[in-house]
Amino acid sequence: MLEAGWFLHPQLRNDAAQVGDLALSCVLSINDADYPWLILVPRRANVTEIADLGDDATLLMAEITRVSRVLKELTRCDKINVAAIGNIVPQLHVHIVARWKRDPLWPKAIWGVAVPRPGDAASFERFVGTVRSRLEVEGP
Amino acid sequence: MLEAGWFLHPQLRNDAAQVGDLALSCVLSINDADYPWLILVPRRANVTEIADLGDDATLLMAEITRVSRVLKELTRCDKINVAAIGNIVPQLHVHIVARWKRDPLWPKAIWGVAVPRPGDAASFERFVGTVRSRLEVEGP
Repeated sequence: MLEAGWFLHPQLRNDAAQVGDLALSCVLSINDADYPWLILVPRRANVTEIADLGDDATLLMAEITRVSRVLKELTRCDKINVAAIGNIVPQLHVHIVARWKRDPLWPKAIWGVAVPRPGDAASFERFVGTVRSRLEVEGP
Repeated sequence: MLEAGWFLHPQLRNDAAQVGDLALSCVLSINDADYPWLILVPRRANVTEIADLGDDATLLMAEITRVSRVLKELTRCDKINVAAIGNIVPQLHVHIVARWKRDPLWPKAIWGVAVPRPGDAASFERFVGTVRSRLEVEGP
């Protein structure tokens, strides 16, 4: 019942693939050839700030930690960047992005700077499948 | 003893004022006239990723929530932006920044885009004092 009234924001639905559902969050992935990119969207209606989550904030942090670890192991990146911005899409969502010291924008943050350059569909599908399997979630 | 070996990274010490210490994190503030800006730095040595914090991640989330609320109440901003990037300063630190729909960069994220434009010292000192009082922490 806690999910009552929640739906994935149309822009997130449009821009990202659905990886699967953790206990709290829907996991998405943006097809970006330079920056492997996951997004957590807590399935709670009308929440725009982390501070609005109440007790669920602890669960969100556990999911950020779990997803960060999986992304780092999979990509062997140098750094994980985590951000909850939401100036464009108000629905609370947390970006978790893999960065390398040799990537095009390092050390700059990617938000507001880069437009994603999609990789080929087959590679992206493989990536999403691997994340899905590591997180033990099912696709839509 | 958990703080053994921890010290505030020189660049953070140089760029920001020290507000005070919460249970886990040292709270800093950057003097930016456009974006009231707080930073949480967990006092744990050699931690660069949220996922390295272990059980302390829960406490960090509680502090993010608490500090976000105080910043939103104080500034009456439209949105709180939260990010752990760390591509330049590797020591784990979490930015918590107040944003308005009328601010110069809205809806862009501020990281990597804007160089802080300092406000006058007296206003900044008042801001730091008010945050200190709301968080019930003591200055250095």
